[in-house]
Amino acid sequence: MDYHAHRLLTIQSHVSTGYVGNRAATFPLQLLGWDVDAVNTVQFSNHTGYGRFGGLRFDAEHLEQVFTAMAENYLICHNRVLTGYTPSPEALEVVETLLREQRRKNPGLVYLLDPVMGDMERGMYVNPDVLPIYRRMLPLASILCPNQFEAQKLTDITITSLDTMYHVLEKLHGTYNAPHVLLTSVDLPDMDLAKLGAASAMPDGQPAMLLVGSSRVDGDAKLHPWFIQFPSLGEYFSGVGDMFSALTLARFSASRDDLPQPASASCQDYTHEASECGTPIAQAVALAVASLQAVLSRTRAAMIALGQEQRIDPFQPSHLLPVDERVKVMRMRELRIIQSAQDILHPSVQYRPRWAPLP
Amino acid sequence: MDYHAHRLLTIQSHVSTGYVGNRAATFPLQLLGWDVDAVNTVQFSNHTGYGRFGGLRFDAEHLEQVFTAMAENYLICHNRVLTGYTPSPEALEVVETLLREQRRKNPGLVYLLDPVMGDMERGMYVNPDVLPIYRRMLPLASILCPNQFEAQKLTDITITSLDTMYHVLEKLHGTYNAPHVLLTSVDLPDMDLAKLGAASAMPDGQPAMLLVGSSRVDGDAKLHPWFIQFPSLGEYFSGVGDMFSALTLARFSASRDDLPQPASASCQDYTHEASECGTPIAQAVALAVASLQAVLSRTRAAMIALGQEQRIDPFQPSHLLPVDERVKVMRMRELRIIQSAQDILHPSVQYRPRWAPLP
Repeated sequence: MDYHAHRLLTIQSHVSTGYVGNRAATFPLQLLGWDVDAVNTVQFSNHTGYGRFGGLRFDAEHLEQVFTAMAENYLICHNRVLTGYTPSPEALEVVETLLREQRRKNPGLVYLLDPVMGDMERGMYVNPDVLPIYRRMLPLASILCPNQFEAQKLTDITITSLDTMYHVLEKLHGTYNAPHVLLTSVDLPDMDLAKLGAASAMPDGQPAMLLVGSSRVDGDAKLHPWFIQFPSLGEYFSGVGDMFSALTLARFSASRDDLPQPASASCQDYTHEASECGTPIAQAVALAVASLQAVLSRTRAAMIALGQEQRIDPFQPSHLLPVDERVKVMRMRELRIIQSAQDILHPSVQYRPRWAPLP
Repeated sequence: MDYHAHRLLTIQSHVSTGYVGNRAATFPLQLLGWDVDAVNTVQFSNHTGYGRFGGLRFDAEHLEQVFTAMAENYLICHNRVLTGYTPSPEALEVVETLLREQRRKNPGLVYLLDPVMGDMERGMYVNPDVLPIYRRMLPLASILCPNQFEAQKLTDITITSLDTMYHVLEKLHGTYNAPHVLLTSVDLPDMDLAKLGAASAMPDGQPAMLLVGSSRVDGDAKLHPWFIQFPSLGEYFSGVGDMFSALTLARFSASRDDLPQPASASCQDYTHEASECGTPIAQAVALAVASLQAVLSRTRAAMIALGQEQRIDPFQPSHLLPVDERVKVMRMRELRIIQSAQDILHPSVQYRPRWAPLP
């Protein structure tokens, strides 16, 4: 047994109640056999979407003290690193310094960078000064997973078509040297969806989410894009992106041997058709999506039951509600991660990645 | 499905690497199906036994802000609460206020209080001003689990014999009204061990740990003490007490129905002989001890392998080492909790609680 393998560092928020940031990432990672080190960037009572919360954003000095002591004590020797929301530009610079050092010492490090800045609906929801820092950090990452808004900000390209989307991928692979890119949600005009071979909705009429991935194979300048569609992961839930990035990193493997083997974990092969993309990152995404769909379906069932019990519509737009109602609705929407251990260990893959046409 | 059951709040330390406090408690609790809320009282790089660490003890004001926001947002509605090491008297008073309020609102609350203050080897290792606060908190607890040192401090009685040990139990049940008391480690003279019906060593010659429990049944002033012996849980390891209290609280049930049912959890009946004690708290302890024995045996195997690899004796007295060696030894001793998921879910009970003679 290799006692040094399967060490993973995650640097994200901590909330005392509910599941975002490190609270959405840690349990799934541990369940899948990763020995997780967790540095918390904040401690809040609950996530900020409740509209009322208490606690602290930790300053850069505190984070630096923790990282320095870890380094002095020979504890910075992870195979994988995961970063997400970081509360301030100063704190992000501390994370940057750490990753720069780790990357220098360990070329084999697998680092998933989720450049959390905002989304298409809400725009930028962090201090815009983090943008140049994220740009500097991009070349350190193995896997980038921006959403459309973040990818546009990072590349200064607006995605309006298949072509502009491919430009974004090319810039992230080329200028920023990213081995794997996942655009976690992309909106394309129907005409471009058709060119991609994607549907404009799920077969049952539900809105379809489009995730586009691409890996740069050594020495090959060409894009090898693929995509996966699945029912909307839900505008109602917080922490979905954090759980997605954790599950993707947990499941990603260039060779199967570098995945931990929890007694009951499974990572089945499922690529049967020529049109299906079975690259390691696409397989990891398919497993992550499958686990998440199960978590969300369990969460929706709980929301409906709790809504009936408390006579509150848990699906109503929460930001319009008085805060005393809003916090109750947000609480109902917390991901049922703990109750979904079996779906995290043994996801049933329904949605499969498919190769996209070359640009 | 009851969406309000199985909510558990744990208030302890957070370390970024390794397993003490909330880091030793949270994963086992989640694995066993508890929806855990975690308030961290510190964030350190690693536990203080390394001799070198960085981070912050959170002050009373921060903890109060977190609890206040949780209360305002209707998030303080736990069935169970677990508290352990709290960094200062001021912080402990904030925890006291929270528990007093919770106890008032929810008489059915199951609260496990581990009054962390010190041990027989090292004496008091926290600010002694916590002692009067712990005394005030004792009547709020459902399960108390002091070690011998802490029990002596709380009751002002020195345990030198079976009789004095029974006086301690009587005082904790009587003066402090504790329903369940676990003396997690007790040293008795051989003569008193014999009176108790306990051995002075394990059958294979290993040192035996003695844990003594007692529950006060409604309206019955008599003690009903029992004990369990098992091989030493190891002077080498940190976090054992924290994991023990978490597992005991997770497994304790007055009625089976109030335990969560993770898909693969087991809680078998194992009481076959008249001398065996099968009370709910004794059963919980037996399951906790069984899981811990497996974790410790896995941890020892890793220590031996890592020690050979790095040519360091991981069992040597670490406090005598230069700090640069000491941190390496402490790292080798970290509990292998993540790797022991199956032993946490399905412990194999080897050591059984037995009734002790009435005083």
